[in-house]
Amino acid sequence: MDIKKDTFIACDTPFQNADIVILGAGFDSTTTYRPGARFAPSAIRKESYSIETYSPYQDKDLEDIKVCDAGDLDLPISDTKRVLEVIEDGISEILKANKLPILLGGEHLVTLGSIRAILQKYNDVIIVHFDAHADLRDDYLSDKLSHSTVIRRCYEQLVSREVHQFGIRSGDRQEFEFAKKSTKMQKFNFDGIEKIKDKKVYLTVDMDVLDPSEFPGTGTPEAGGVKFLELLKATKTVFENNEIVGVDIVELNPMVDNSGISTSLACKYLREVLLYI
Amino acid sequence: MDIKKDTFIACDTPFQNADIVILGAGFDSTTTYRPGARFAPSAIRKESYSIETYSPYQDKDLEDIKVCDAGDLDLPISDTKRVLEVIEDGISEILKANKLPILLGGEHLVTLGSIRAILQKYNDVIIVHFDAHADLRDDYLSDKLSHSTVIRRCYEQLVSREVHQFGIRSGDRQEFEFAKKSTKMQKFNFDGIEKIKDKKVYLTVDMDVLDPSEFPGTGTPEAGGVKFLELLKATKTVFENNEIVGVDIVELNPMVDNSGISTSLACKYLREVLLYI
Amino acid sequence: MDIKKDTFIACDTPFQNADIVILGAGFDSTTTYRPGARFAPSAIRKESYSIETYSPYQDKDLEDIKVCDAGDLDLPISDTKRVLEVIEDGISEILKANKLPILLGGEHLVTLGSIRAILQKYNDVIIVHFDAHADLRDDYLSDKLSHSTVIRRCYEQLVSREVHQFGIRSGDRQEFEFAKKSTKMQKFNFDGIEKIKDKKVYLTVDMDVLDPSEFPGTGTPEAGGVKFLELLKATKTVFENNEIVGVDIVELNPMVDNSGISTSLACKYLREVLLYI
Amino acid sequence: MDIKKDTFIACDTPFQNADIVILGAGFDSTTTYRPGARFAPSAIRKESYSIETYSPYQDKDLEDIKVCDAGDLDLPISDTKRVLEVIEDGISEILKANKLPILLGGEHLVTLGSIRAILQKYNDVIIVHFDAHADLRDDYLSDKLSHSTVIRRCYEQLVSREVHQFGIRSGDRQEFEFAKKSTKMQKFNFDGIEKIKDKKVYLTVDMDVLDPSEFPGTGTPEAGGVKFLELLKATKTVFENNEIVGVDIVELNPMVDNSGISTSLACKYLREVLLYI
Amino acid sequence: MDIKKDTFIACDTPFQNADIVILGAGFDSTTTYRPGARFAPSAIRKESYSIETYSPYQDKDLEDIKVCDAGDLDLPISDTKRVLEVIEDGISEILKANKLPILLGGEHLVTLGSIRAILQKYNDVIIVHFDAHADLRDDYLSDKLSHSTVIRRCYEQLVSREVHQFGIRSGDRQEFEFAKKSTKMQKFNFDGIEKIKDKKVYLTVDMDVLDPSEFPGTGTPEAGGVKFLELLKATKTVFENNEIVGVDIVELNPMVDNSGISTSLACKYLREVLLYI
Amino acid sequence: MDIKKDTFIACDTPFQNADIVILGAGFDSTTTYRPGARFAPSAIRKESYSIETYSPYQDKDLEDIKVCDAGDLDLPISDTKRVLEVIEDGISEILKANKLPILLGGEHLVTLGSIRAILQKYNDVIIVHFDAHADLRDDYLSDKLSHSTVIRRCYEQLVSREVHQFGIRSGDRQEFEFAKKSTKMQKFNFDGIEKIKDKKVYLTVDMDVLDPSEFPGTGTPEAGGVKFLELLKATKTVFENNEIVGVDIVELNPMVDNSGISTSLACKYLREVLLYI
Repeated sequence: MDIKKDTFIACDTPFQNADIVILGAGFDSTTTYRPGARFAPSAIRKESYSIETYSPYQDKDLEDIKVCDAGDLDLPISDTKRVLEVIEDGISEILKANKLPILLGGEHLVTLGSIRAILQKYNDVIIVHFDAHADLRDDYLSDKLSHSTVIRRCYEQLVSREVHQFGIRSGDRQEFEFAKKSTKMQKFNFDGIEKIKDKKVYLTVDMDVLDPSEFPGTGTPEAGGVKFLELLKATKTVFENNEIVGVDIVELNPMVDNSGISTSLACKYLREVLLYI
Repeated sequence: MDIKKDTFIACDTPFQNADIVILGAGFDSTTTYRPGARFAPSAIRKESYSIETYSPYQDKDLEDIKVCDAGDLDLPISDTKRVLEVIEDGISEILKANKLPILLGGEHLVTLGSIRAILQKYNDVIIVHFDAHADLRDDYLSDKLSHSTVIRRCYEQLVSREVHQFGIRSGDRQEFEFAKKSTKMQKFNFDGIEKIKDKKVYLTVDMDVLDPSEFPGTGTPEAGGVKFLELLKATKTVFENNEIVGVDIVELNPMVDNSGISTSLACKYLREVLLYI
Repeated sequence: MDIKKDTFIACDTPFQNADIVILGAGFDSTTTYRPGARFAPSAIRKESYSIETYSPYQDKDLEDIKVCDAGDLDLPISDTKRVLEVIEDGISEILKANKLPILLGGEHLVTLGSIRAILQKYNDVIIVHFDAHADLRDDYLSDKLSHSTVIRRCYEQLVSREVHQFGIRSGDRQEFEFAKKSTKMQKFNFDGIEKIKDKKVYLTVDMDVLDPSEFPGTGTPEAGGVKFLELLKATKTVFENNEIVGVDIVELNPMVDNSGISTSLACKYLREVLLYI
Repeated sequence: MDIKKDTFIACDTPFQNADIVILGAGFDSTTTYRPGARFAPSAIRKESYSIETYSPYQDKDLEDIKVCDAGDLDLPISDTKRVLEVIEDGISEILKANKLPILLGGEHLVTLGSIRAILQKYNDVIIVHFDAHADLRDDYLSDKLSHSTVIRRCYEQLVSREVHQFGIRSGDRQEFEFAKKSTKMQKFNFDGIEKIKDKKVYLTVDMDVLDPSEFPGTGTPEAGGVKFLELLKATKTVFENNEIVGVDIVELNPMVDNSGISTSLACKYLREVLLYI
Repeated sequence: MDIKKDTFIACDTPFQNADIVILGAGFDSTTTYRPGARFAPSAIRKESYSIETYSPYQDKDLEDIKVCDAGDLDLPISDTKRVLEVIEDGISEILKANKLPILLGGEHLVTLGSIRAILQKYNDVIIVHFDAHADLRDDYLSDKLSHSTVIRRCYEQLVSREVHQFGIRSGDRQEFEFAKKSTKMQKFNFDGIEKIKDKKVYLTVDMDVLDPSEFPGTGTPEAGGVKFLELLKATKTVFENNEIVGVDIVELNPMVDNSGISTSLACKYLREVLLYI
Repeated sequence: MDIKKDTFIACDTPFQNADIVILGAGFDSTTTYRPGARFAPSAIRKESYSIETYSPYQDKDLEDIKVCDAGDLDLPISDTKRVLEVIEDGISEILKANKLPILLGGEHLVTLGSIRAILQKYNDVIIVHFDAHADLRDDYLSDKLSHSTVIRRCYEQLVSREVHQFGIRSGDRQEFEFAKKSTKMQKFNFDGIEKIKDKKVYLTVDMDVLDPSEFPGTGTPEAGGVKFLELLKATKTVFENNEIVGVDIVELNPMVDNSGISTSLACKYLREVLLYI
């Protein structure tokens, strides 16, 4: 019997032979508004059969690279600390095998598990962060571990203390004040991204950096966002000018993606990311 | 200016004058499948203006009784233990004022906060539990506090050790074995409910006890459920034969109630419950 | 070119040759809750191609009878009085041609226009009314012409002063008191319908008489309704025992019929009604 | 008990202490196509908890200003004339207390009630009108009071006879001819808005001026609209150059806002408007 | 890494060790009304994690039996004849390995591929057919291979010429006349199903046999159907009295299952079928 | 009785008097991902009553031109070859009457039927093709007749061998290589469209050339598309510089157009196309 594959399209290289490993983390327990990001990795896989493996933007094809879609981590979703450990362990296993990890959230907090694993291998890593929200709260509803605090938590762990934020257009006053002192934040757009050069970069992409017109399927859409082609260009710039050591793509929420265009866009973005590497 | 009210229909008696107090607890963080029950109390309030205050079933009218809809508790939703404390405190405040509390979930775990408050006042209370699911796990994904363990946790705290379960049609084998030893479980329907008499009863109603055809708007619908008129009759029987000391109505999930009929039914059920008292 | 027809399935007999005429009245301006019934007639036509012309219930076929689907009246929807006149004129034109009119709403108020035309021809007509709601208010928000007052208005115009109501399960106290004095109301079900005999009957069917599980696509769904097979049987009983002089089918709201099952059921009900005649 | 507030986020200043008063008017009875705008004010309030009180565009915070969200007017929705009177009375009450009124529709006709109240206090007011539609018909289906005639009606009442229209891209030929003679209409965009200076301005914003990609949740979406950031800039220009005496925001229709991005955008726009004042 | 499984819940026995094999056939090209059944097998798998492996109806558990969910066939969906061959080959492979096949459609035509494979092994097989539609047309729009002709085609191939149909409530007159001569058809319900005894049975279940209130998620819903508990009981009767040689479950359409209750019910039905065997 | 018309707005000129004829072809059987385009022509007609007949872009009105909306072809949808013949015959009938045909799909394959008819009359025609997808496969899943091969098939039949493609951003590598040799393809946008001059042009518009933010309602949305105003301008350029001999508009899928903005945009685009002619 000829059976259909369940991986992201054309990403069926066995783990040991792969250069890149995709790993899903369907977690959204700290989401305060519209939950559902937990369903994103499986939605992306299923939807990926609607796109082509070939990119006319790059004239490259997923068939020509070696990617393993390892599936979704089995997460104890009601225990946030343990979830982060499971993610950290999963990413560590990929890094130890000398493969590049691409983590699919889930909500943004999953980044913290990933960055902990990254820091064990690359202590000079910096973070490039695309998002509508600053995610720099110290705590949220007295919780230190939240999608709203995740970049603050990552920042605290970074040896480099270097976080570049782009596209930010929402947060409370304290977050923007913290950013002025501690991170390098570019509000609203990607201006200046070409200045980041020759670094080891972990790229975390909250898909809500995009305008809700192009990406309605996310829990807290914020009008006034960047466009898909701008996101592609910014991503390409970071990849060309730096060494990428890890990537995550978070906050797609299929439960509110009635039209399906957000899931479809996420597939296309993931294809382009895989081909940039 | 004549401004529209935001309470459940006709439940605008001030707290101090009321005999019954409705309190919302929009919490769903331990939900493992389709989250969204957090939006139930506000959806019920808004939808209540589509029903009448008069019940042709009972020939009574909400206008003739004194109910205060106190609104929704402000919950620290990412800290489950604290959430339960806030609920406990809210219900205690109602009980101390000698009013009957009606708690609107949220997911089923909210019942635990409520029952803790009830036990401080009535140590001989028993629980009557309508649900599709047994909710008798000892832990769920290693978590002791979950919508799947809530009746087990309540049972452990009851002095009476008396829990009557009705309509149950889903659970793992261990839960049904636990029920055989420890609770009184009637699978699939309400048979035998008239035997519960002259007790102090706390009634917890997981709306998914209803068949999904009548109540699709819940996170884990289970085919083969009871009908609305059966639920009304069972509720009436419990109310007529016993002293009711508290009620909760949980697990409406407006995010998956596309047709709106579940929210509408919940309003009607709440009206009937208020008029039975 | 072989072009698809736009009528209700198999109802393409020219007006002059038809025995029965279907007429649409897409009006819903007095709807107080979820508007959208205005789209019902066109939705029913379009959906009708998913059903068969043959009825296994009656062993009859729409191909064997002569029905003209005349389309939808062009209504001045912001002028309620004028809308009722246009409906009255349309139905009168059908009656004058000695054909049986079947009016598709629209909200329930359209019945008033129809009954006015009927009364000009049959002054001894009685009304049989299937509905979840009593529709017996004297006024609604100080408006005399409303979906909530329509049966009261019809009652006032009837020479026979004979209105039989079935399935009623919602209304305010005054409506039920009015019913006790003035109409013959059977709450909740169709009990006693076989006693209506040898009358000239105008049948008005508010589809929300059905349980919302079977018919979610209506503006104000009321749990605890009758079943489709009960509705068929009650309709058959009325048709067999009396002379039918007009029928209307109202309150399908396609805007809230996400699953499409309500529109589909309405098509099937209309087919059975056409074949009962 | 700590109860959640029901106002627009951070707009809970008591009426007497407020500088600005938000008032809802959930009316949509003259809507000819997809009704549902009646649910907009409550949808905006509920959704507002997904946005922040701080604006990174203006570096200001709602916490620092005094706004009272007074709730929704209780409207006799089936009597259009009376509805307009109730709106007029509500706005008058706000103006007499020397506060700035912000009216949330509802359909566009609500503007007429508001402008009547405004004219009693400011007889030299001019209107700035953002919309996809000209709304300049003399009557619509023989109705003088309609969402399609509202700007014509307002124009007739203005002492200044000065109406500036922007973004218009739909209407019949007569409306565009009327505009050439009587109003100052800028088709498609906001060009020239900086020329309006030193006036007393009433700003009426039909949200369908936005492109349907950014704002799908409206009854009659019109492709080819302006962008959110253009709307913000135009609004800011009007506020900086003139004295604002009243604002309304109309035609959000939550019933067709499946993705929720329109309601979310409306919240953000209202926040920016409040902070511009 | 501990990765989540992609099979139907607890059906992860390797092919060689399994007693039962589930195979998906996501085909719906001949669907004339609402297409989408092609997505059913993957939707059922994903949704299965919302149900339990334990059945309180049978006191049995999926963990105790050996089932292999082999995934979905890779089908050339635009070539109907070839699709049927691929299905036939897949089922044959299962039968040759002496395992019981369970085919998940897809539209009803997939049954024809399955029955061809079955007939190669069991020439005395009879068919038991649960459906709302007769599916006995000789051709449909001049096409011999269609969801509307599938039982006629199967009948023609059966050596036994024995087809028992239950629940049928839709078809054209010719189909019902054909049934009178050639098949044993029970309209509307399951009456008489206990008379089928000691046969080799292939069971084909079109889920639209269920009432649309319980199962809205199908392309052509037909009001007046059977209930879930009736379907369970009928299925149990057939399994107890006969030797089952193959089963298929078809016509779930996830694209129109907005509420999700149909997919959920299909999971539960599949669990019960697996445990009946 | 004054009955509403069922044609596209203001396109009710009788066939013999018309200059332009609109014809619907609701076919989508070769769709490999999300089917539903078969419902597009009727959805466009129904939605057209939400737009105006007057175009402020061109200062022209549909009332001033003579268009016949002939309705939808009755297609044998399960027989692809026959479907193409029926379309060819329909278009031929229009051409023989010396009227300009505008075909509404359906999926893109319908273009092949149309181009065959066109070639019988105009053997020097060239094709201008707006699309997100190249549609240049030689076969798709071994099928020569598919929405993915349609432009290849058309190319093969063209005497001129001249196909200009614009907006293309998806396809496999072979398609892009074929384009380099055989067609004139402009990736991503409309650059260079003004160079097509003085030709007999058949224009085929796959609406998914638009960005999914503006046109989500299509089976395989592709991020990074063109804007509505760009599409209008490109269309105008082609019409001004060439002789148009036929147009088709395809791939609207109302089943996934939850917000309705795609259907609405398609109406507006069709109006502009009619007025450009």
